[in-house]
Amino acid sequence: MDPVKIKKARKEWNVPVSDFAMNTFNPIRSIVDGMKLTPNPQKEMIALSIGDPTVFGNLPVPEAAEEAVVEALKNRSYEKSRAAVAEYVSTPTTKMEAKDVILCSGCSGALDLCVTALANPGQNILMPRPGFSIYKTLAESMGVVVKTYDLLPEKNWEVDLQHLTDLIDGNTAAIIVNNPSNPCGSVYSKQHLEDILAIAAQYKVPIIADEIYEHFVFDGYHYYSMASLTNEVPILSCGGLTKRFLVPGWRLGWIIVYDQNGVLSEIRDGLASLSQRILGPNTLIQAALPDILKNTPPEFFHNTIQYIQQNAELFYKRFTKIPGLKPVMPQGAMYMMVGVDMPSFPEFKSDVQFTEKMVTEQSVFCLPASCFQYPGYFRVVLTVPAGKVNEACDRIEEFCRSHYRPGNTPREAMETNGN
Amino acid sequence: MDPVKIKKARKEWNVPVSDFAMNTFNPIRSIVDGMKLTPNPQKEMIALSIGDPTVFGNLPVPEAAEEAVVEALKNRSYEKSRAAVAEYVSTPTTKMEAKDVILCSGCSGALDLCVTALANPGQNILMPRPGFSIYKTLAESMGVVVKTYDLLPEKNWEVDLQHLTDLIDGNTAAIIVNNPSNPCGSVYSKQHLEDILAIAAQYKVPIIADEIYEHFVFDGYHYYSMASLTNEVPILSCGGLTKRFLVPGWRLGWIIVYDQNGVLSEIRDGLASLSQRILGPNTLIQAALPDILKNTPPEFFHNTIQYIQQNAELFYKRFTKIPGLKPVMPQGAMYMMVGVDMPSFPEFKSDVQFTEKMVTEQSVFCLPASCFQYPGYFRVVLTVPAGKVNEACDRIEEFCRSHYRPGNTPREAMETNGN
Ligand SMILES: Cc1ncc(COP(=O)(O)O)c(C=O)c1O
Ligand SMILES: Cc1ncc(COP(=O)(O)O)c(C=O)c1O
Repeated sequence: MDPVKIKKARKEWNVPVSDFAMNTFNPIRSIVDGMKLTPNPQKEMIALSIGDPTVFGNLPVPEAAEEAVVEALKNRSYEKSRAAVAEYVSTPTTKMEAKDVILCSGCSGALDLCVTALANPGQNILMPRPGFSIYKTLAESMGVVVKTYDLLPEKNWEVDLQHLTDLIDGNTAAIIVNNPSNPCGSVYSKQHLEDILAIAAQYKVPIIADEIYEHFVFDGYHYYSMASLTNEVPILSCGGLTKRFLVPGWRLGWIIVYDQNGVLSEIRDGLASLSQRILGPNTLIQAALPDILKNTPPEFFHNTIQYIQQNAELFYKRFTKIPGLKPVMPQGAMYMMVGVDMPSFPEFKSDVQFTEKMVTEQSVFCLPASCFQYPGYFRVVLTVPAGKVNEACDRIEEFCRSHYRPGNTPREAMETNGN
Repeated sequence: MDPVKIKKARKEWNVPVSDFAMNTFNPIRSIVDGMKLTPNPQKEMIALSIGDPTVFGNLPVPEAAEEAVVEALKNRSYEKSRAAVAEYVSTPTTKMEAKDVILCSGCSGALDLCVTALANPGQNILMPRPGFSIYKTLAESMGVVVKTYDLLPEKNWEVDLQHLTDLIDGNTAAIIVNNPSNPCGSVYSKQHLEDILAIAAQYKVPIIADEIYEHFVFDGYHYYSMASLTNEVPILSCGGLTKRFLVPGWRLGWIIVYDQNGVLSEIRDGLASLSQRILGPNTLIQAALPDILKNTPPEFFHNTIQYIQQNAELFYKRFTKIPGLKPVMPQGAMYMMVGVDMPSFPEFKSDVQFTEKMVTEQSVFCLPASCFQYPGYFRVVLTVPAGKVNEACDRIEEFCRSHYRPGNTPREAMETNGN
């Protein structure tokens, strides 16, 4: 062997991980993995933390969807899946076609493609705070800078429009809007969505609309897709079966490309290239998709929402009576944010410690909103079996009463300065 | 609105695609999309180009796998899926555990994670030529340099070990070995795999073993996993259900981390982080996985291989008699590479033109091996219905006979200098 070779041979095994992998970082995981979650052995665990609505077993998959999969096993054609989604999202005024649909591995996969197609390293993307953590995970691993715009709890989590405007600069590649929202459960009015769109139009910034909770709104509210409210702003709408059809594990998501003025043609090509890396979602579910979308009866959605709304109302009623807690009533989705008057719980330095101790003492786990970059709150999922809501509230109440030490800090201070 | 804001507002919509998306480039797609593929209207199209073995409808999904999915719809637990894969890949001497298994969206997803975890931009990865194009697609989009090591057609596509050695430098992050091979159909001997491993050991370079065709070998050959032949070299073995179980659309792939000396601990963490971006494959298939792996009878695999081997022998026999063609008999997988004595077909400048014209005249489409960075060959899939093999060969023969112009270039020149 020649000397050059010998020189380049390493002496020891040294297999470092790439920067990309090291920068792929899920704040929820890293906060939760760092918590000491040792439930009280006297009390059965109630996990109000888990976003997956199916884990409790009380919200079943639509029968029509299961039948569609069994049918798809026999009849394996998945040619019509994109057209079926196009039809599903079309409205009388906005007809979409198969070419406007990109099927992805869940809504996470859809968001990944959108962020990756739109932003170069060093550019920035605006996302809500509090907000779903995957936006940050995806963007930062690509070297894309994340800037968060504030949501206002006292305005039912509407966007602080001035703050949003102030954050936009020449390097802003996209604004992510999540409506209805995880973790807030907020549902924006037509006017508020139009206000956001006006800012996007003024600065010519495209929108990534995370609309995975589309139509998931409580009685008295109305869901507007962002694309239905603009004829200027290009929109990549991310959705899928995950939430509305209660099949998160089926990993069927989509991007709908709304591009009325033809400014997204490069992006369309880019999304198509990117979607060849992993080759799309399971074709069995793709084959079942037309039937799933067509045959799931309206009552299915209605029942799910009613169930969640009842839970929301119950949680809200109970939480408003617990000293030191300040719930914000949601308008849709599956979550409620609850403010904690931290100064009145002097034992705990943070929402993380507060929720950790609630597990130790009461075996109830709520996700600290630090996971959504919003310390001082915790998030409750509303998909728990109804029978457990009161039990959970009893325990949370006992926990708060035993640690509540209202001191010098007036309650109002927290109400206007929520985090 | 303040003047700073006005300044930063763009006047026109300008939404450029990211470099990452632009650099995500599938050579097969770009070559094939550039071809004029207009079949002869007099002849029914025979696509010998399509890698998906299920498109012809003659190779069905194992019944046990379909039953397992139906069962999984009722019984939705997918906790045991990784353990089931660990058991499936374990041997009496190498016991693997659930923690060594990462489930991915197809083998493509597995390869994506491996390349992404191991290499930084500017580092290089070695891959075979001819080789499956996704390695290049994945690596180059990440800014990772791809260097190809030669396979030798005259040695049944064994690796040119000297060439492989020469390519290794201090920036080499991994060697990809694909055995059995797409597009070559080669199956390496124990000795040859040990020779490759010795080089990896000497230079301390980890191996990504693309073993998606594991066990897919013809009578008389034996499949060795790379991991079974080393106790030094760390190996990420990529596999899945796609080929052996004939369910490419189910998108179930895996990485098995073989790390006997504990040098991959950073990589394990990195793979775990990366696999949170897209959240793993469909849980329905995951739930079905233990039954699929356990209940699919040996005859199923045996029948598939026998079927493909018969096709291989038939194609080989026919091609050896066609002037200007030089097939290389495969030993496994689902493909055969066929050399074209290009100088004897002076009408055509390349394998791309050659195969294009074969579509125009004969409605038979073989993939030009330029798609695998190996001009002067084409690849035939062996999964076509048996009845079509002779018909396809008749037409290929007619095509070659009508364009063959043996000239001054002796046949032997091509045999030793295949591309
Ligand atoms: C706001 C939001 N977007 C996206 C997702 C990801 O959805 P999927 O499971 O389809 O990837 C979730 C899941 O919780 C979510 O809450
Ligand atoms: C060598 C090789 N590796 C990986 C793959 C990708 O497999 P999957 O469809 O599971 O992503 C293929 C598919 O053709 C292949 O031939």
